[in-house]
Amino acid sequence: MSELYERVALIGMGLIASSMALAIREKGLAHEIVGTARSAETRATALELGLVDEMFETAAEAVAEADLVVLCVPVGAMEAVAKEIGPHLEFGTTVTDVGSVKRAVVDAVAPHMPKGVQFIPGHPVAGTEQSGPRAGFASLFDNRWWLFTPLEGTDPVALERLKNLVTGFGANADEMAVDHHDLVLSVVSHTPHLIAYTMVGVADHIRRVTHEEVIKYSASGFRDFTRIAASDPVMWRDVFLTNKDATLDILGRFTEELLTLQRAIRMGDGDMLHDYFTRTRAIRRGIVEAGQDTDAPDFGRAAKKEP
Amino acid sequence: MSELYERVALIGMGLIASSMALAIREKGLAHEIVGTARSAETRATALELGLVDEMFETAAEAVAEADLVVLCVPVGAMEAVAKEIGPHLEFGTTVTDVGSVKRAVVDAVAPHMPKGVQFIPGHPVAGTEQSGPRAGFASLFDNRWWLFTPLEGTDPVALERLKNLVTGFGANADEMAVDHHDLVLSVVSHTPHLIAYTMVGVADHIRRVTHEEVIKYSASGFRDFTRIAASDPVMWRDVFLTNKDATLDILGRFTEELLTLQRAIRMGDGDMLHDYFTRTRAIRRGIVEAGQDTDAPDFGRAAKKEP
Repeated sequence: MSELYERVALIGMGLIASSMALAIREKGLAHEIVGTARSAETRATALELGLVDEMFETAAEAVAEADLVVLCVPVGAMEAVAKEIGPHLEFGTTVTDVGSVKRAVVDAVAPHMPKGVQFIPGHPVAGTEQSGPRAGFASLFDNRWWLFTPLEGTDPVALERLKNLVTGFGANADEMAVDHHDLVLSVVSHTPHLIAYTMVGVADHIRRVTHEEVIKYSASGFRDFTRIAASDPVMWRDVFLTNKDATLDILGRFTEELLTLQRAIRMGDGDMLHDYFTRTRAIRRGIVEAGQDTDAPDFGRAAKKEP
Repeated sequence: MSELYERVALIGMGLIASSMALAIREKGLAHEIVGTARSAETRATALELGLVDEMFETAAEAVAEADLVVLCVPVGAMEAVAKEIGPHLEFGTTVTDVGSVKRAVVDAVAPHMPKGVQFIPGHPVAGTEQSGPRAGFASLFDNRWWLFTPLEGTDPVALERLKNLVTGFGANADEMAVDHHDLVLSVVSHTPHLIAYTMVGVADHIRRVTHEEVIKYSASGFRDFTRIAASDPVMWRDVFLTNKDATLDILGRFTEELLTLQRAIRMGDGDMLHDYFTRTRAIRRGIVEAGQDTDAPDFGRAAKKEP
């Protein structure tokens, strides 16, 4: 067991930062938590909820004396933050981030890190469609993966210490190469999000089907899309803009594949459809077996009664 | 309160039929339940689970003396079943179905219904990715919609009695015109399913990303797609083949819209993406407010611990 962090500085106070704060408190994984957020309202909320010991108006102030700094801002805001905090980081401090894209974050942050600071890019593969400081909960990372994409020359001791923190949250730590991370996440996360956003947008446009109908009958498949498509707009805008190449690659393949299925429907090729749908079932079984979802028949979603 | 059905005959014994049987038993909504299924194994399972009082080898036998017959077979099998049971239906019997497509079912079933039989097409908008007689659970329909698309000349008393049965399950009964049903469901269910199948198929094909990676990191969005894409292949093949026009219409719009977003990503148009993603959030709020999903931060999915 490596030693606890003395002082963790959370830059940004959204779903991930607030969940980290709650998990650190609950499991006693650091002596002190401080933070910063751009809006005064968020800063007040973080203090009111007891997420942190102290909130600062600027990131520069927040990182002073911290031995761990976690960048929890949208990917598009990383460069400005890195530039701001660079001169204020103490020798020996570890800096990590929680961005969903890693190449763009590495390019934005690494050049601003002074000598003697360990920058270890990270990505907790966990989230909900909620955002803001009130959205956090301590068990968010429980049994989820936390990916690190260490750069050349990373101190193994600093990496180990950081991994111990996230496994302390209940997460499973793993390592991946920077660019491979962005490709994998494009497949399992970024492109599915874009598709969900698109389908929800289509439903919004069809005049012969009312909003009320879309909402009433959503239990039939659409509901899961809306959950995904309700995710934070700023975060997702930045993901698509900064993981452009992988997203366009996977989108191209998706469209190709969709047109093949569309043609099978048009031609009435039932065998092709049946074979395709049978293959996709196997992947689902793998996910349930890997413990990343539940196989319970109502998948743990007890229907809420209308009042 | 209209009188209970004397004898309900369930034709087919999958997720919906087994859930109906359990709900009828639990709430005492009929005096007797009988059924039929093509496979001997399914018939044995239905008896073993106590879903029905009696199982028959043929649909013709099962419907004799029933005052309610429920067709719970894939849409593509409806015509053969209707032809088989037609001559064996008693005067005054109500026949309904649970198919996800209504025009094709009306065309397949109505011509085989004898005089004095009420055919009232229906569709419970509820389900899971499970199938078969062991997949059923009594609360499946709880607070879900059960759509009826009554034909001209339907006896209002028979319709009322059928509605009372499904509201007895906890469902909300509603009426819709046949073709409008197929359009609405194409938007909220059929097209989202096809898209989910496609995305899971794409993930399956990308050689640089391993199956293990797809499964491990699925919590990030892909998981919901795999749940949808694990649904019954025969049922869904039939849905797409029989709701072809609406599906192709909505798919065309979807592709158009997706290409617009793809172009915004390529051109780096962050404002367009942000606006789009902000609009889709509102639909989600409507669904949560309508009680068709929960707003709980982990949406009721407690993470399972690996052993």
